Amino acid sequence: MGRVYLVGAGPGAIDLLTVRATRLLAAADIVFHDALIDDDVLALAPRAEKVAVGKRCGAHSTSQRFINKRLVDAAAKYRLVVRLKGGDPMMFGRAQEEIDALAEAGVDVEVVPGITAALAASADLKRSLTRRGVSRSVAFVTPRIGEGEDVADWTHAAAAADTVAIYMGAGDAIAVARALIEQGRPPSTPVALIENASRPDRVVTVGTIASLPTLAAARGNGPALIVIGEVVRDVAAQPATAVRPRVAALR
Amino acid sequence: MGRVYLVGAGPGAIDLLTVRATRLLAAADIVFHDALIDDDVLALAPRAEKVAVGKRCGAHSTSQRFINKRLVDAAAKYRLVVRLKGGDPMMFGRAQEEIDALAEAGVDVEVVPGITAALAASADLKRSLTRRGVSRSVAFVTPRIGEGEDVADWTHAAAAADTVAIYMGAGDAIAVARALIEQGRPPSTPVALIENASRPDRVVTVGTIASLPTLAAARGNGPALIVIGEVVRDVAAQPATAVRPRVAALR
Repeated sequence: MGRVYLVGAGPGAIDLLTVRATRLLAAADIVFHDALIDDDVLALAPRAEKVAVGKRCGAHSTSQRFINKRLVDAAAKYRLVVRLKGGDPMMFGRAQEEIDALAEAGVDVEVVPGITAALAASADLKRSLTRRGVSRSVAFVTPRIGEGEDVADWTHAAAAADTVAIYMGAGDAIAVARALIEQGRPPSTPVALIENASRPDRVVTVGTIASLPTLAAARGNGPALIVIGEVVRDVAAQPATAVRPRVAALR
Repeated sequence: MGRVYLVGAGPGAIDLLTVRATRLLAAADIVFHDALIDDDVLALAPRAEKVAVGKRCGAHSTSQRFINKRLVDAAAKYRLVVRLKGGDPMMFGRAQEEIDALAEAGVDVEVVPGITAALAASADLKRSLTRRGVSRSVAFVTPRIGEGEDVADWTHAAAAADTVAIYMGAGDAIAVARALIEQGRPPSTPVALIENASRPDRVVTVGTIASLPTLAAARGNGPALIVIGEVVRDVAAQPATAVRPRVAALR
C-alpha cells in the first residue's frame, strides 16, 4: 500500500516550493492537485499522472467526499501519492477531512508544509506582519462559508488581533468591511490587497477598511489576500504594469 | 552596491527550506544568521562568510541596531548578502527594523518567506489549524516582550481566535495559562506543545490549558510552540524516544 503526502505548493512562484515538495513531486506516481496550481509546478512531477480535483473559488468543484475516496483508492494502487494544495495544506485547505479519511482507511499520510499566502504577501509588501511595539498578534481568518458549514464567527478574531490576514475575502469585501467596522476597527485602519502574491504579475492596492470594497472591485481574477492593520500603513502600491523580475541577482 | 535578502530558514528540517532560499545561500557572499540556525543549513552556503548575530531566547544577543549597521556595511562590500532567520522572517522575526534600516541607507532588500513554526507543528501533528465547522480563525501571538518594548496585549487575540499558536511562550507558561483562562478560554481547552517541530528529535506533549505549565516544565532546550484549540483535541503525544525518519519513501 502506498503513502499519501499532503504537500503545500506555496503561493505561486515555483521556487517558493520547499525542497521536500520538489523531491516528492519528482518521485510521485500520481498528483491530485487544486485547480489553482500552475502548469510549471505540475511539470516538477514528470513521472506522475495528474488529476485536477477542484477547488476554485466560486466555481463548481469536486466534492470533498469524492476527493477523499480517490486518495484512498490511489494509495491502494500507487506507491507515492501526492495531494498538492495551494499555499499551506493546513491553512484553509480542507486537509483534515482528507487526513482523517486516509487514517480511517489505514493509509499512511504525511504533511509537507508550504508557504501560506499571507507570508508571501508580507514578503512582497516588505512589511512584517508583526512589529515591535505595533503588532504582536496576527489573525488568519476567512469569511468564506464552505458547503454544509454552519456560519461561524471570524469577526471577533479579526477585531482583536493587531494584524489580520483575510483569505478568500475579496469577493465579499463589502460585508467584510462592514463586519470589521461593526466590531470596532476604525474605518481608517490601513489595508493592503495583494493579488497573485509572489508572482511577477502581482498587484498591490492600498487603502483603508472604508475603501476596501473599492480596492476589491478593481481586482483581477487571481487569488487575492487582504492584510489589515498598522503594519501596512503607507505601503507603496504596485500597479499591474510594473512586472518585476524576482531574485534578479541569481540570473 | 550589493543587495540584502532576508531569508526564512524554515523550522529546522533542511529540506523545508524553499528552493529560492537554497539558491540564495549557494550564491551568497556573506550570511548573517540567528543563533538557532543549524550547521547543516549553513553548509548550504559554502562560499559565504558566516556571521552569527543573536538572537537566542533569553541569552545575551547582538543588539538590533548593531545588526542593522552590519547589514548596511555588508551591502557596501559584498554583492549578495543573506540575512537568514529561523522560520519566516516576517513572523516574530524583527524583520521590519532591518528592512527599514536598509531602505534608509538606500540598500536594495528582498524578503524570501519561510515555513513558520506553527505550520511545521501543524504538519507534525497532522492537525489542520483550520477545520470546517470548528476553526475558521487562527491567531499567531507571542507573550514575549522585547527590549525597549511596551507591554502590548496579545491575550485578546488569543481569546477570540478559534485556534491559537503561541510563539516563545513556553518559558512563561504559568502566566500564559492564567491569561488565557482570565480571558475566558475554558481550562479544559486542548493544548499541544511541540518542541523541535519538523526535526527527527521533535517531541509532542498534549494536555489542556490547565496542564500547560506542567507540559512546559517538562520540555527540553529546543524551540517550543504551543497550539491551543479544538483542532488539537485527542492529538497523540510523540515521546522523545520515538525518533522517526522523515519522508521515508524517498530513501
